[in-house]
Amino acid sequence: MNLSDIVTPAALIDLPRMQHNIDRMQSQINSLGASFRPHVKTSKCIEVTQAQVAAGAQGITVSTLKEAEQFFAAGIFDITYAVGIVPTKLKQAHALIAKGCDLKILTDSVASATAISEYGAARGVSFKVLIEIDTDDHRSGIKPESQMLLDVAAALVTPGASIAGVLTHAGSSYDLNTPDALIAMAEQERALCVRAANRLREAGFSCETVSVGSTPTALSAISLDGVTEVRAGVYIFFDLVMHNVGVCTMDEIALSVLSTVIGHQEEKGWAIIDAGWMAMSRDRGTQKQTTDFGYGQVCRADGIPIHGFFVTGANQEHGIISSHTPQSSSISEMFPVGMQLRILPNHACATGAQFPQYQALDSAGDVLTWDRFYGW
Amino acid sequence: MNLSDIVTPAALIDLPRMQHNIDRMQSQINSLGASFRPHVKTSKCIEVTQAQVAAGAQGITVSTLKEAEQFFAAGIFDITYAVGIVPTKLKQAHALIAKGCDLKILTDSVASATAISEYGAARGVSFKVLIEIDTDDHRSGIKPESQMLLDVAAALVTPGASIAGVLTHAGSSYDLNTPDALIAMAEQERALCVRAANRLREAGFSCETVSVGSTPTALSAISLDGVTEVRAGVYIFFDLVMHNVGVCTMDEIALSVLSTVIGHQEEKGWAIIDAGWMAMSRDRGTQKQTTDFGYGQVCRADGIPIHGFFVTGANQEHGIISSHTPQSSSISEMFPVGMQLRILPNHACATGAQFPQYQALDSAGDVLTWDRFYGW
Repeated sequence: MNLSDIVTPAALIDLPRMQHNIDRMQSQINSLGASFRPHVKTSKCIEVTQAQVAAGAQGITVSTLKEAEQFFAAGIFDITYAVGIVPTKLKQAHALIAKGCDLKILTDSVASATAISEYGAARGVSFKVLIEIDTDDHRSGIKPESQMLLDVAAALVTPGASIAGVLTHAGSSYDLNTPDALIAMAEQERALCVRAANRLREAGFSCETVSVGSTPTALSAISLDGVTEVRAGVYIFFDLVMHNVGVCTMDEIALSVLSTVIGHQEEKGWAIIDAGWMAMSRDRGTQKQTTDFGYGQVCRADGIPIHGFFVTGANQEHGIISSHTPQSSSISEMFPVGMQLRILPNHACATGAQFPQYQALDSAGDVLTWDRFYGW
Repeated sequence: MNLSDIVTPAALIDLPRMQHNIDRMQSQINSLGASFRPHVKTSKCIEVTQAQVAAGAQGITVSTLKEAEQFFAAGIFDITYAVGIVPTKLKQAHALIAKGCDLKILTDSVASATAISEYGAARGVSFKVLIEIDTDDHRSGIKPESQMLLDVAAALVTPGASIAGVLTHAGSSYDLNTPDALIAMAEQERALCVRAANRLREAGFSCETVSVGSTPTALSAISLDGVTEVRAGVYIFFDLVMHNVGVCTMDEIALSVLSTVIGHQEEKGWAIIDAGWMAMSRDRGTQKQTTDFGYGQVCRADGIPIHGFFVTGANQEHGIISSHTPQSSSISEMFPVGMQLRILPNHACATGAQFPQYQALDSAGDVLTWDRFYGW
């Protein structure tokens, strides 16, 4: 199969670009002396994850227990579930551990830590638990200097649980767009997470793992002193949000939506394509950034960007392509019915999630179909 | 199974509300003397669609050929594919027709009409083709008074095709929020589509079907004179966008995301839930409306709205719940870890699409699991 055989819309992976992204991240983390645990929530695809493992990844990070189950079934044993667990999900986590999965779970409250310990003690399992640290005020986690850090740790030293370490995610790095700010955020993420680990150790608790990461901070870090592992997800494909953050070029974006022109509104300068929000997702992550790409950057079928043309509107199965600047040719001459286009997405995690499969295009122009799963 | 057994996040259908919505729409269209062809892109679920057919729907509307294939396999023969077709999809359409599906396809260009005719003639199939009419300037279609209407019609009177009728969708009704404006838009949609049909007939073309519809116009129409059928989709579940448009109450919203509280940031007044944008979708359709519900309205597990609490932030698997007004209780007292909540979505079509299954809750409190498909 090659490009022109693909039924559109389709989630197209440019394999040489993906491999470049894998190698770039793995080299960066290797050079700083930490191990790398990719977040596979971006692809939810066995073949993509196998390429990350082949390049040197040590274990994976997941955002759902379904991901843990799917990747464990595919032969990956070392898995960190990086979303705070609730008691109702412990049964599902326990089932994985009972099958031999080396699963680490996460908490940031005494209530959850106590529930984990009680569940584990009652059923004869000892959960490996990471304590979530808040290093940038953007979401979950415990402040490194808080008493709560020690309280949660104490609630985990029981027959039903043990402290595996500390974990943080500086998600506010997505809001930055200069190298200096990114370097500073990477250092803040590192320093505060290491500080939390040291406070635990000083109080007599064990803290083997010190896990940090987000794509922007992982690529910007200058030192990882005291960090044992880094996690990152979206770097595998990159996207327009990461382009605006400044950690990738347009040519490094490895995921696009292959689409076909289905019609025009000539007077408005609109071409209509068969990729609407169901294909692109509703993610408008570039809306508040320096360059707003609408629902995506329009490229030719061979991947070359068509300057100034964006998906400026989207209904469920219709995308509207237009340009903000006047054009010398008519829209139907530029984009005839049946023409294939690649659309670079705002957010690769959201766009990939709309598709049951990826179409993986290799350097010879051949296309492989790779399954992708979803749900919980 | 009942509510507390459901693994969260889950797409929950309130079945009594759904049945009320089905009956409400079917009665409205019956009373105006047209037939009703629901758009099943909202649910993509066999059981939901069977309930619409049982209430009197005549045929269905689909947004992808995958929907056509799935519903045809489930025993529904009369299907309109309401997205302009491109030549590369004719093979897939032909395969359905060859199996006995009464499939209608759509075009709004001479280029596509010619390609349809040529494909049909070459392979001995006559496609039933609807001509898409633009009645509100919002997306695709041909203006009723244009010469192009007659040119497209002429390109369809061939051995490979026939004119099935005209079809329009006044999607700009979503931007309105007063009964008068909605009534006027419904009348505009009707009058312009009927005008296009009459122009075709006056020019000697046949035009049996006159198909109009959107949820807001379908519920607001006072006359359907000259219209043969109405299409609508999101009414089956409704959502917060439709609530803001003014065509449903909060109590008529039949789809919600069942979620669980996983943590807090006490000082910020945040409760964190396990429904992020992967569950809610990235749809922020209420952002530009009179009431912005963030990523959704928070309700108790029994469905009663908790006034003033919205999902104000969303990461992939984390939702942040907060209120714009000060509260007398602490957030962790109001929303303890493990508490189940229902979140009403901005846009039911987008939220449903994030889930492989629906959990359908009946009036007795029992839960059935219904499959949902996706992709193209």
